[in-house]
Amino acid sequence: MEITMKEAASWLASQDDLLILCHRNPDGDTLGSGYGLWHILKAMGKRAAIRCSDPLPKKLQYLAEGYLEEDFEPRAVVSVDIADQQLMGEGLAPWRDRVDLAIDHHPSNTRFAARLLLEGESAATCELICLLADELGVSLTREMATCLYTGMATDTGCFKFNNTTPRTHRLAARLMETGIDYAWINRHHFDTKTRNQLALEQQVISNMEYHFDGAAALIILTENMYQIFGVTEAEMDGVAAIPRKVEGVEVGITIKERGPQEYKISLRSAERVNVSAVCATLGGGGHYFAAGCTLKGPLPEVKARILEAVGKALEEQA
Amino acid sequence: MEITMKEAASWLASQDDLLILCHRNPDGDTLGSGYGLWHILKAMGKRAAIRCSDPLPKKLQYLAEGYLEEDFEPRAVVSVDIADQQLMGEGLAPWRDRVDLAIDHHPSNTRFAARLLLEGESAATCELICLLADELGVSLTREMATCLYTGMATDTGCFKFNNTTPRTHRLAARLMETGIDYAWINRHHFDTKTRNQLALEQQVISNMEYHFDGAAALIILTENMYQIFGVTEAEMDGVAAIPRKVEGVEVGITIKERGPQEYKISLRSAERVNVSAVCATLGGGGHYFAAGCTLKGPLPEVKARILEAVGKALEEQA
Repeated sequence: MEITMKEAASWLASQDDLLILCHRNPDGDTLGSGYGLWHILKAMGKRAAIRCSDPLPKKLQYLAEGYLEEDFEPRAVVSVDIADQQLMGEGLAPWRDRVDLAIDHHPSNTRFAARLLLEGESAATCELICLLADELGVSLTREMATCLYTGMATDTGCFKFNNTTPRTHRLAARLMETGIDYAWINRHHFDTKTRNQLALEQQVISNMEYHFDGAAALIILTENMYQIFGVTEAEMDGVAAIPRKVEGVEVGITIKERGPQEYKISLRSAERVNVSAVCATLGGGGHYFAAGCTLKGPLPEVKARILEAVGKALEEQA
Repeated sequence: MEITMKEAASWLASQDDLLILCHRNPDGDTLGSGYGLWHILKAMGKRAAIRCSDPLPKKLQYLAEGYLEEDFEPRAVVSVDIADQQLMGEGLAPWRDRVDLAIDHHPSNTRFAARLLLEGESAATCELICLLADELGVSLTREMATCLYTGMATDTGCFKFNNTTPRTHRLAARLMETGIDYAWINRHHFDTKTRNQLALEQQVISNMEYHFDGAAALIILTENMYQIFGVTEAEMDGVAAIPRKVEGVEVGITIKERGPQEYKISLRSAERVNVSAVCATLGGGGHYFAAGCTLKGPLPEVKARILEAVGKALEEQA
């Protein structure tokens, strides 16, 4: 059942011993929302805990500063930024069908929760957590703001992408006023690379392939490359943005080896191609400008399949 | 004489036939301010024109959409984002000592104008132009906002750097509400590179030098490199941000050949070094985190001088 911000706030206010669920392969928005909401619930004197199938990525560990794990039997379950039960992962299986409130900004949310607070026009779920704090009468603290700013900045490419709205900026202004070190957060996420990361990025770029008269650019990352350069896949998170940056490229394609004969594909669109639709034809999904899917088989086959799908989409919009 | 926003607005309101001066090697802020102010003055029914020593860079040509050159004898001269008369260049020589109002956000402004509207805490001069529009009772249009957003976004690395303030975000929100294509502006400035630019960038990164145990990283761009890769200096504008992105680097150094035995140095600081002070010892200036200077002599000497100055600064803050 879809509920309003006011209803979500009053339901949260009436609960205690809350479990907050974040999605697997956690990013800045799901964890920023989770830890941000945790601080809000603590400020209200409630017991709460956060669960995620995957460990906290190194890059996001600062979000857990001040977090204290408490031992209690959850009496209410809230998911943040989770569009689909499949994105919960194995670790959250016991709670999969027990979500009392889902807070989300993905229009594709599968309505798995008893209550759903959904705003598809929100740049980030963290925006909704900000507004919930207001509705709950909780003043934003520096700790909350560090979490919430992180989700908003990472989901918008630092206010760069077209999901950014005037409200995103106004909320960012308020979060900054709590005294957060936003410049550090941004440098940490957008402007810091290890020498190894930079070297691997160099390698990947020098092997970049152009297809369809330069309308698509494709890069490949293999397990072997991670090993040679001493870099983890998580550290190469931003790499999928690279091929689309080349002038004339409408679709950027990134192929990442994930296991034996298993590849994760990330597509990025410059303007005219709905890559979510392209990925949907291959069993994946996402947003108009950023989407993904997983393909199995030998690399040359995987490459041929994704190029065929992209080529078709480019032809259709031509 | 330093004047207030109100005084600047009422002086502007009382003038006509205005000449707006932008600094040489024009960037998004000086041109965004110039064209933004031009639209504001036109909305007030005045005659105005823009002058710059250098031609409009290709990347910023969209700012001039709707600009009409009129022929008149200037009766008032306004400079935007110009900290020092030297930054006017040869083309503005006739106006060098005739500036009636300087609008600027550089704390280092040399007070060359009869009136100075200076706010050192402004992320961009474009912020001051926004506030002037308010003070003048001029409603922001899409044309004005495209110019003003460009200056704010380019001077803050898209709201990423620590010069960004809550006010910057709130003004950005208002500019967005005029219907500008902010996502295009951001993609155009931050996420688009030609294949040649990318190739030259690759070359520059692979030659990057590390100094002082990795606390400084240095890159060099020569005229010869521009020729080989078929890229102009203006196109490599963002390159100065690269060395500072490497983990552990406190000061990023970019040396660009400008002519025979003449080099433009750009310094970028991660956190602890005031690079404006470093550049000041070498006859340059700028901001705490981003500054520059020009050094003459053979490249090895120039390199030794800048490294010595940076090394000293790193030692002092250690």
